[in-house]
Amino acid sequence: MGRMPSSSSSETIVLLAGGVGGAKLADGLQAHLGSRVVVIVNTADDVERHGLLVSPDHDTVLYTLAGIANREWGWGIEGETFAAAGMLERYGEETWFRLGDRDLATHVVRTARLRRGDRPTDISRDLQRSLGVEAVILPMTDASVRTEVLTDDGWLGFQDYFVRLHQEPAVLDLRFAGIEDAIATPEVVAALEVADAVLIAPSNPFVSVRPILAVEGIEAGLQTARSRGARVVAVSGIVGGKALKGPADRMLVSLGQEASALGVARQYTGIADVFVIDSLDAGQAGAIEALGMRVVVTDTVMTDAAGRARLAGEMLDAAMKGS
Amino acid sequence: MGRMPSSSSSETIVLLAGGVGGAKLADGLQAHLGSRVVVIVNTADDVERHGLLVSPDHDTVLYTLAGIANREWGWGIEGETFAAAGMLERYGEETWFRLGDRDLATHVVRTARLRRGDRPTDISRDLQRSLGVEAVILPMTDASVRTEVLTDDGWLGFQDYFVRLHQEPAVLDLRFAGIEDAIATPEVVAALEVADAVLIAPSNPFVSVRPILAVEGIEAGLQTARSRGARVVAVSGIVGGKALKGPADRMLVSLGQEASALGVARQYTGIADVFVIDSLDAGQAGAIEALGMRVVVTDTVMTDAAGRARLAGEMLDAAMKGS
Repeated sequence: MGRMPSSSSSETIVLLAGGVGGAKLADGLQAHLGSRVVVIVNTADDVERHGLLVSPDHDTVLYTLAGIANREWGWGIEGETFAAAGMLERYGEETWFRLGDRDLATHVVRTARLRRGDRPTDISRDLQRSLGVEAVILPMTDASVRTEVLTDDGWLGFQDYFVRLHQEPAVLDLRFAGIEDAIATPEVVAALEVADAVLIAPSNPFVSVRPILAVEGIEAGLQTARSRGARVVAVSGIVGGKALKGPADRMLVSLGQEASALGVARQYTGIADVFVIDSLDAGQAGAIEALGMRVVVTDTVMTDAAGRARLAGEMLDAAMKGS
Repeated sequence: MGRMPSSSSSETIVLLAGGVGGAKLADGLQAHLGSRVVVIVNTADDVERHGLLVSPDHDTVLYTLAGIANREWGWGIEGETFAAAGMLERYGEETWFRLGDRDLATHVVRTARLRRGDRPTDISRDLQRSLGVEAVILPMTDASVRTEVLTDDGWLGFQDYFVRLHQEPAVLDLRFAGIEDAIATPEVVAALEVADAVLIAPSNPFVSVRPILAVEGIEAGLQTARSRGARVVAVSGIVGGKALKGPADRMLVSLGQEASALGVARQYTGIADVFVIDSLDAGQAGAIEALGMRVVVTDTVMTDAAGRARLAGEMLDAAMKGS
């Protein structure tokens, strides 16, 4: 078991996160540090459905930290119903992005507030408070950024690829539409300024973590944090050559990389100080150290709440321990 | 039992309708005439909730004609669930206007299409087609009109008064915000041009029927129809001095009228040729005839599908029979 926080501790830990893996690690961190965890979440997978703004990674983190996430699906809310979706289907709406009834309420509230001119960051904060989330979730930016993937059929919106096409097409390239106008919010900047450590979740390095780092001010804030001694600790979402969730393994290969912990580590060269890999991948430790990172080998698979807290504790240990 | 349509018949019957009473009569007419019924529905009770446009009278008619209306409540859909509403409440939204999960889908689709610039009339038509409605439902206008009622606490939006305050405040005056910019749609104009008869539902004469007649082109179209021989047949929604549904009886009194069939008939002086009253109110026939209308006395309470078809048949008879 990793270290537990002392009550006198007042450090701020920033986590860069995508969806499921990010949410689980965030949950483990919240168990240790409560409101001292700040999760900067990818919003480049946002998508408009039925005129509503859906923010899948954000909401997975939100629902997970609120303790209402559906544990089987990797998205949505526990005990969710789909009455509205059935009616949307009757109205001839495309329902490949299936929205549950409770989840729909989130998108309705978000969209109504956006149309009134509220900032995504403020909306998110209120959703968190309403659901009793202890940690702080910050959208990576208040601007609209959309990941697009190049396939043999041309450029596709991310959710088109991810949900509608079940991640089947090979991803030949990536781009983040709107990224040139995206800047870090004051809240994100402030969190990085006070961060005692920055953790990078076992999320997809290309479509979850890279968009976050591509927002103007975030990688710079992270490097400034490093330069004043805060460590950046990343963890591989590839274990034994397979992605724990999603298409990261195939994406690594189709983008000319290696589907391995080493392949992931290479994405964080010059960014991460410590790289956490699973015991299964211990053989890659040397190659990863050669990239200039300290390697921690542990059990990285978060199968339950204890597993989430354990990995979170290990990463906090790695961040705080003198090298 | 009223007359049944002959298969060679090709008349068009236009119904002016509000919510529940209008929906029931529309349903009875649809049973007789199918697609030859055109329902011009009040949209001045529309309201924006959670950023979505809700159209209560329209949707009551829509759901009733589609056979999915909730028969107990007078609004909403049979077997409706409220998972989204519970979540909206958790998010701190005001939920005095309670939206069911399936119903919410209607408002989501409508709002998305409105924001894309589609006309309310076209949106409504597609909703009807999706739900297999045979009759034609036409919003009274594509413009935004909002009924407001004057109470001791000042002017209130109609649903504020109707739903939030349970119709408790006395209504001292009425106005239809936006009515000066509302014109009849080409579809409404065309329906009145070919109408063989115009029926007025047992809906609230002040807040359901009057807004329809106040739309530029509708009363004129109705009078043109009369001048070429089409009859206008109205029916009282007040039976034995009580409104069958809603606050029409109290509204008649607080607006200085009489809560009776006669009080309703006075609202249609110069508009209706025939006025249908319940047997309970037979004693008022003479006074109503003195207003210049032929009176038909019958059972006007639509307790079931047969009752709806029966009243519809009586009104069709009254419309078509030589005086």
